[in-house]
Amino acid sequence: MTINIIDILTAKRDGETLSTEAIQWLVDAYTHGHVTDYQMSAFLMAAFIRGMNDAETQTLTRAMLYSGEVLDLSDLPGIKVDKHSTGGVGDKISLPLAPIVAACGVPVPMISGRGLGHSGGTLDKLEAIPGFNVNLSIPEYRRQLQQNGLVLIGQTPEIAPADRKLYALRDVTGTVPFIPFIASSIMSKKLAEGIDALVLDVKCGRGAFMQTVPEAEKLAQTLVEIGEAFGKPTVGWITNMNVPLGQAVGNWLEVEESVRCLKGEEVSEVMELTYTLASEMLCLGGVAETPEKGMVMAREVVENGKAFEKFLQIVQSQGGDIGVLENTASYTQLAPAYEIFVPDASEGYVHDIDALVVGKTAVLTGAGRMRKEDPVDPGAGIFLHLKPGDEAKAGSRLATLYTQKASDVEALKQAVVAAFQFGEDKPEYKPLLMKRVTGKGIVRGS
Amino acid sequence: MTINIIDILTAKRDGETLSTEAIQWLVDAYTHGHVTDYQMSAFLMAAFIRGMNDAETQTLTRAMLYSGEVLDLSDLPGIKVDKHSTGGVGDKISLPLAPIVAACGVPVPMISGRGLGHSGGTLDKLEAIPGFNVNLSIPEYRRQLQQNGLVLIGQTPEIAPADRKLYALRDVTGTVPFIPFIASSIMSKKLAEGIDALVLDVKCGRGAFMQTVPEAEKLAQTLVEIGEAFGKPTVGWITNMNVPLGQAVGNWLEVEESVRCLKGEEVSEVMELTYTLASEMLCLGGVAETPEKGMVMAREVVENGKAFEKFLQIVQSQGGDIGVLENTASYTQLAPAYEIFVPDASEGYVHDIDALVVGKTAVLTGAGRMRKEDPVDPGAGIFLHLKPGDEAKAGSRLATLYTQKASDVEALKQAVVAAFQFGEDKPEYKPLLMKRVTGKGIVRGS
Repeated sequence: MTINIIDILTAKRDGETLSTEAIQWLVDAYTHGHVTDYQMSAFLMAAFIRGMNDAETQTLTRAMLYSGEVLDLSDLPGIKVDKHSTGGVGDKISLPLAPIVAACGVPVPMISGRGLGHSGGTLDKLEAIPGFNVNLSIPEYRRQLQQNGLVLIGQTPEIAPADRKLYALRDVTGTVPFIPFIASSIMSKKLAEGIDALVLDVKCGRGAFMQTVPEAEKLAQTLVEIGEAFGKPTVGWITNMNVPLGQAVGNWLEVEESVRCLKGEEVSEVMELTYTLASEMLCLGGVAETPEKGMVMAREVVENGKAFEKFLQIVQSQGGDIGVLENTASYTQLAPAYEIFVPDASEGYVHDIDALVVGKTAVLTGAGRMRKEDPVDPGAGIFLHLKPGDEAKAGSRLATLYTQKASDVEALKQAVVAAFQFGEDKPEYKPLLMKRVTGKGIVRGS
Repeated sequence: MTINIIDILTAKRDGETLSTEAIQWLVDAYTHGHVTDYQMSAFLMAAFIRGMNDAETQTLTRAMLYSGEVLDLSDLPGIKVDKHSTGGVGDKISLPLAPIVAACGVPVPMISGRGLGHSGGTLDKLEAIPGFNVNLSIPEYRRQLQQNGLVLIGQTPEIAPADRKLYALRDVTGTVPFIPFIASSIMSKKLAEGIDALVLDVKCGRGAFMQTVPEAEKLAQTLVEIGEAFGKPTVGWITNMNVPLGQAVGNWLEVEESVRCLKGEEVSEVMELTYTLASEMLCLGGVAETPEKGMVMAREVVENGKAFEKFLQIVQSQGGDIGVLENTASYTQLAPAYEIFVPDASEGYVHDIDALVVGKTAVLTGAGRMRKEDPVDPGAGIFLHLKPGDEAKAGSRLATLYTQKASDVEALKQAVVAAFQFGEDKPEYKPLLMKRVTGKGIVRGS
């Protein structure tokens, strides 16, 4: 029987499960323009409402993956491991993490994205380093990885073109927040990078796509199962994104915080998460026997300076100015700073900071974008002097706002203050690491 | 709050009921190109799966109706009544019906469609009359109606442009068979004609869109409720479309059968249905007090020749050749005829004829079209000499095939024979008129 779009649409409309052949045909026909946008959007809506099972999701991922080039790095030595985060506020983890793992001898081929809406993107942060070039060709990507054991680039046109087309269509048809689409989009790009294994950081809470632990767990489970179905050991962590991660929210501010971390400063939760993800990557990369041993190795390369050295090395290799990283103070203030103080009535302790409010306010400072085409201001953002659990004295510094938008400063200050909740007593600690998610057998469980 | 397409899509995606404002905005924005095809198709799929309630369906109808010109015929005397059929095989009822009703003094402003797939269309049948012009301007439509009390035309570009756009999109996105869409499409066009009341013939069975009585009843109920919501008294009949209607299937063949009916021949079920629908129209049109009295009036204008006279009058007014209608024998054979005989093994009685098989075979003779752009052969079709309940003697004529496709004749003959079921005993009679559907109060029930 020949496959056609109307049969696929009516089958999914009526809640049927699609065959492997039908899904492959659909993605292929859409990529080549034989299925139109209006037909694909009807499919997206039908699948969103009726659901897609694990087998369908894996087939969709495979079809999207093979819509473009799938890199083969097997001729390069080592087990290549990458990390992917589902995106949050103040999430600069890739910046300290990747050099740490590479410094321990595990090659990291990392293809990242840009920020959109309230969540930031690794590419925007890297580009806050003057000269840093994220647009490498595939041969250059291979060369850098071979030479430095680490490369940090943006998605190239060769990788998963079906995903780019589908993502744009989902964005304008109300079909974004659906786990099979989110998972296949992430994994088709990651699997195309040439990785051997993957660590996932699935954000959970009001600053994340996934608002609840069960939702985040379902996404993590789906991602891990896809990874394993493709023979790539995959481990997921569900982490708390109710509160911004670390103190810095904004591109250069986050680079500067990452540099401090790489120099050995234990910035609030940043290094807790970095070391946890690093330990998983070092296990998957075959250089650590257990996550505990991986943790020790990761701390060692920070303490002995090898991780920071690795970071400088790749920044230099990719055209970035290492001078500003060696002496961040000389460069920190890219945008005018405005201090925000603890209001008199709020003395006590910081109980909570709403990551969504901080993320949206950071966009308004110029640090993020609402549309893909918008530019970002590398110097803009918000620095949080106090985090939940910290004592708040009236008149002491609460946050610093960095923005070129002088006329908006009062409104932005108020928005930042409104993101905070204060209380008289020291609040209960809310763990950052919520749950570890593994699959059915490839990865040794802990 | 401003209305936007993403909010509408996510609301319907999640099963919410849409406000009147949202639906009106959507149809308006789509008609004017502010909402794209790919967004509208996502909406169509979401609405199809999640459903639309009666209020939403009425709002959709109103929005589609007012996307174009709504004719006002209130300056013309009489209660204007039209009939709409949901389409079947051999359904030529409009041809005898409209002149009968007009001859009884009820003005009939009838805008019809073309055939598509296995079901025929009134316009194609009218165009089988040489010279007949179905493309009248709106002023000409008014003039003909005023002069003759009857006019038979095709949809003009001014009427319900949103429906035309939506219908084309439904056709290619697997969202056709959904009662709120079917009902709003039919009613937006009918209400735009300037009618005061409407009779509906909702076909039910394997040769129809609606396969079961409950489905057909739901559609009829929805159509009647929309009509009443717009203040137009509406009555529906659910009629059997398991078997072709009458003996003729094909454009000229059906004109010829209609002429015989108008001349007083009681062609199997054709006149049973024609008189029933006529009696309803005459009641709604205010010239008959009861359907029974309407039935008597309708028979009278056939018997005294006034109905046929009315038919000739409008054919002449719309440019058609009345000579071929006065003497059909001179014109009947437009395509070569091939006789099909009762197979030896099938002696006994005709038990059943599959309307869907006959309809699809008629398309293959050239009588119908699979795509809107295709031409039709006015002379092609199938004439059924035997109908269910008739005695079948081996070697006697079963059907005659009319087609220009000489090389396909053997396959077409076999397809026609395969549509028949025979049995030894006389089969049980299956009623043509299945159910009368009325609304909540405008129409006096029977």
